[in-house]
Amino acid sequence: MSAQPQETWQEIAARKQSALCKKLFKDGWQSMRLTFETERPLAGNILPMINSCEHLSPRDIEITEAQDATELLSKIHSGQWPAREVLVAFYKRALVAHRFVNCLMDADLDAALNRAQELDNYLRTTGNVVGPLHGLPVSIKDLTDVKGLNYSMGYVSWADNVSADDAVVVETLRKAGAVIYLKTTMPQTGMALETFSRLWGRTLNPHNVGLVAGGSSGGEGALIASRGSLLGMGTDSGGSIRIPAAYNGLYSIKPTSRRVSYRGNNNNASGLGVSSSIGPMAHSLRDLKLAMKTLIDDSHWLKDPMIIHKPWDYQAKSPAKLRIGVLMSDGLTTPHPPIQRALQATIAKLTAAGHQVVTLEHVKLHMDSDTMTRRVYGQVGSGYMLDEFKKTGEPPIDAIKHRLGWETMSLEEMIQVQISMNYTAIFNILDYPAVTIPTTFVDKTIDRKITRDTFLNAHDKENWEMYDPEVFHGMPVVLQLVGLPSMDGQLLEVAAKIDDINHRIKG
Amino acid sequence: MSAQPQETWQEIAARKQSALCKKLFKDGWQSMRLTFETERPLAGNILPMINSCEHLSPRDIEITEAQDATELLSKIHSGQWPAREVLVAFYKRALVAHRFVNCLMDADLDAALNRAQELDNYLRTTGNVVGPLHGLPVSIKDLTDVKGLNYSMGYVSWADNVSADDAVVVETLRKAGAVIYLKTTMPQTGMALETFSRLWGRTLNPHNVGLVAGGSSGGEGALIASRGSLLGMGTDSGGSIRIPAAYNGLYSIKPTSRRVSYRGNNNNASGLGVSSSIGPMAHSLRDLKLAMKTLIDDSHWLKDPMIIHKPWDYQAKSPAKLRIGVLMSDGLTTPHPPIQRALQATIAKLTAAGHQVVTLEHVKLHMDSDTMTRRVYGQVGSGYMLDEFKKTGEPPIDAIKHRLGWETMSLEEMIQVQISMNYTAIFNILDYPAVTIPTTFVDKTIDRKITRDTFLNAHDKENWEMYDPEVFHGMPVVLQLVGLPSMDGQLLEVAAKIDDINHRIKG
Repeated sequence: MSAQPQETWQEIAARKQSALCKKLFKDGWQSMRLTFETERPLAGNILPMINSCEHLSPRDIEITEAQDATELLSKIHSGQWPAREVLVAFYKRALVAHRFVNCLMDADLDAALNRAQELDNYLRTTGNVVGPLHGLPVSIKDLTDVKGLNYSMGYVSWADNVSADDAVVVETLRKAGAVIYLKTTMPQTGMALETFSRLWGRTLNPHNVGLVAGGSSGGEGALIASRGSLLGMGTDSGGSIRIPAAYNGLYSIKPTSRRVSYRGNNNNASGLGVSSSIGPMAHSLRDLKLAMKTLIDDSHWLKDPMIIHKPWDYQAKSPAKLRIGVLMSDGLTTPHPPIQRALQATIAKLTAAGHQVVTLEHVKLHMDSDTMTRRVYGQVGSGYMLDEFKKTGEPPIDAIKHRLGWETMSLEEMIQVQISMNYTAIFNILDYPAVTIPTTFVDKTIDRKITRDTFLNAHDKENWEMYDPEVFHGMPVVLQLVGLPSMDGQLLEVAAKIDDINHRIKG
Repeated sequence: MSAQPQETWQEIAARKQSALCKKLFKDGWQSMRLTFETERPLAGNILPMINSCEHLSPRDIEITEAQDATELLSKIHSGQWPAREVLVAFYKRALVAHRFVNCLMDADLDAALNRAQELDNYLRTTGNVVGPLHGLPVSIKDLTDVKGLNYSMGYVSWADNVSADDAVVVETLRKAGAVIYLKTTMPQTGMALETFSRLWGRTLNPHNVGLVAGGSSGGEGALIASRGSLLGMGTDSGGSIRIPAAYNGLYSIKPTSRRVSYRGNNNNASGLGVSSSIGPMAHSLRDLKLAMKTLIDDSHWLKDPMIIHKPWDYQAKSPAKLRIGVLMSDGLTTPHPPIQRALQATIAKLTAAGHQVVTLEHVKLHMDSDTMTRRVYGQVGSGYMLDEFKKTGEPPIDAIKHRLGWETMSLEEMIQVQISMNYTAIFNILDYPAVTIPTTFVDKTIDRKITRDTFLNAHDKENWEMYDPEVFHGMPVVLQLVGLPSMDGQLLEVAAKIDDINHRIKG
């Protein structure tokens, strides 16, 4: 199927959005659609509004407010909460969230209901679960193949693309008992750090719908923060899991790219030395560990030549006494005051708990390579993007305009340039695994705006001046922890230790 | 240091070759140099001539004819053969070999003698060895950094380049007790499958000096086959370990690129999705295992972000009953009759021993991608190569001419093209580890020339007609065994099983 040539891009987007709305809010949920039409605030935290929403029963709230997927699974596996009831509760909550933050782009409700029922029957008759994720509703990002559903990558020209098969990761999740029920938004081209497309519109941040959800896995970030899902899969070629996790206050891991298969992700802009990972976003580190163990236990090395043979449990230990390096600045962009505070508080707590903290100097790598890496990202797929825009006439969104039209690089220049920018993409270039750890919230009474006279560069000035305590008050502050390649298990163990110290020690 | 600008490339090459000759054959070895000046045959197997060479004592022959490095090490470690005496025997034999096959390009004799003496003293006084390779002379390929020695990559313009440090692999080998004594030739640019450069001339095959030694690690291949070294390190971005190992009848492994650090290899043409590995070439599979275990035990993941954290011993088991896929042809180039015979014989023996053999169809991957991959190789570094040629005016060798001057590809075309050619490079693209297993020798009475009327393509015709039983009679026939990524240990276990069956079962 492809878009009908006589339609304009605006007509295609309108047709798709309308069809999505009908598909999501069908049958019994029709009324929910109408209720919210006039209720959306322009700014502020909508999470309390979701919790008190008339469309969610106390039971729905109880289920969707489970601490994390691990707790939810224990209720399902013990028979307390049937998988079908859990699915319906999360689906309803996802619809409510979607009306506020616009985070969904496809759904598979009937198949999900059937699967949930099947799982309930299996558990009732055998007393066993089919796998560690038995009954867990799991949401999937736009570009990842879910058989029979749309993948668009935010291109209008892909509006009618339908996946013929499941991605390897989706196969694994289903086999482990997960119920795949929703697909979530991403920005046009996937190269923006917010989630906005001509096809699906803009995804907002549930902590403050006056702010964006980050990107490219912004639909997952907004949906999981809203508890319309407790576990979702994002993809990351430069920060696309970690940035929306940070914006939405979530735990996430961008695994080493060669641990989990990326097959079945319709990314037309990956490759050339920038590693692309697929990984979980969730409400706890133990959920990330559960998801990673489940994925790696499925031996992706037998399905994808890119994946290294290394079972999950191998040497995934952290030492009793940690030695943590801290990068206070990459020398290009000074972190905003709340992030500096979170870093300093974590350093103090780690030191108090007897661990060693080493301050890292920003290496030249960070400093020189920003422009060049942008140029690489501009190259990779820039032509592909323009091709897609041409097909329907859709204009590029502002956030990706600067990535288009770079001067063509030779392959030899490219070899020189496989170095990186800023705080996230560098770990795609290096293919180091990285975890996000929600640490605190912006507090306008502490995190004051500080006037500076000198800046590292024009971007540093612009970024610094963007900080407004009134606007950001209450937003999550999330730190990133980076590990060594393929030591994803160890990284999660160390992250859990730091997270525990952060919560145990006041300060 | 750089070449003096007033010199022509011919003058630079003459100066370097003369200096090398003086350096190699200094002091007591001066006479050897003269003896061989007039004795070199134009064709035929020179291995018996080395064995009966007047410059090698019966003790030199006894030492250098040790079955393999493992046996040699047991004699050194038990104190029977002092490391210094072993070194001198191999150095002498290497000089003899060099006079026949021209395989050396630098040496570090004084440092090696000192180190060997130091190791002997250590063993005598402590009763212990410093590591598993204590006293083993190890040869290193041109492009790999050995502190204080030349690396040239076969470029005249690099004639005076000297390594400031050891490559990671050389560091590891030294720490394990290896004595680094010689550096070996490679072709101009490293992109030829023979070993010929304007700087060092042509390396010949000791099994028949009328034939070439293969490339790019042809110096290692010729030296080890001549037993001037029992263990050497090659590098492989398209077949450069496996091809010279095959031409010279040696065991070798191109490891998964992310198991052993490639740092300190002065390769100006690697990258862009074609993986480059460094790995051992030797006379037995147990030597390969010893070398790989030693390298991986040194935790390269702590020294190089490209290296995955996976200890050597982890699950390096092979199943009792093997299941082996066999590719009789890649659909592009029909193997010569002796290779077909070796494959068939191995299949018969495996089947007789109760293992399962599955015939693989040549996949479309092999067929379509030949030209495109050549184009990729043409891109990667083609400009760098031309730059180096320009500096001194040296002309490209015939074997690499076809790689130059390809039309420039865009990066997007490049992404489409990360697929491969022929029997070796495809496993660099896929980054599958691969082992060479010497299986038999060409026998003109069995491996007759067969006339064919139809060919797969022009190259297949040219290749097929190149086979001449009279010329190739007596040359080694070597098979390649390919494993799954990062399962290098398992691959060597399976290879050992096949090698054992090959030797145990007559046929």
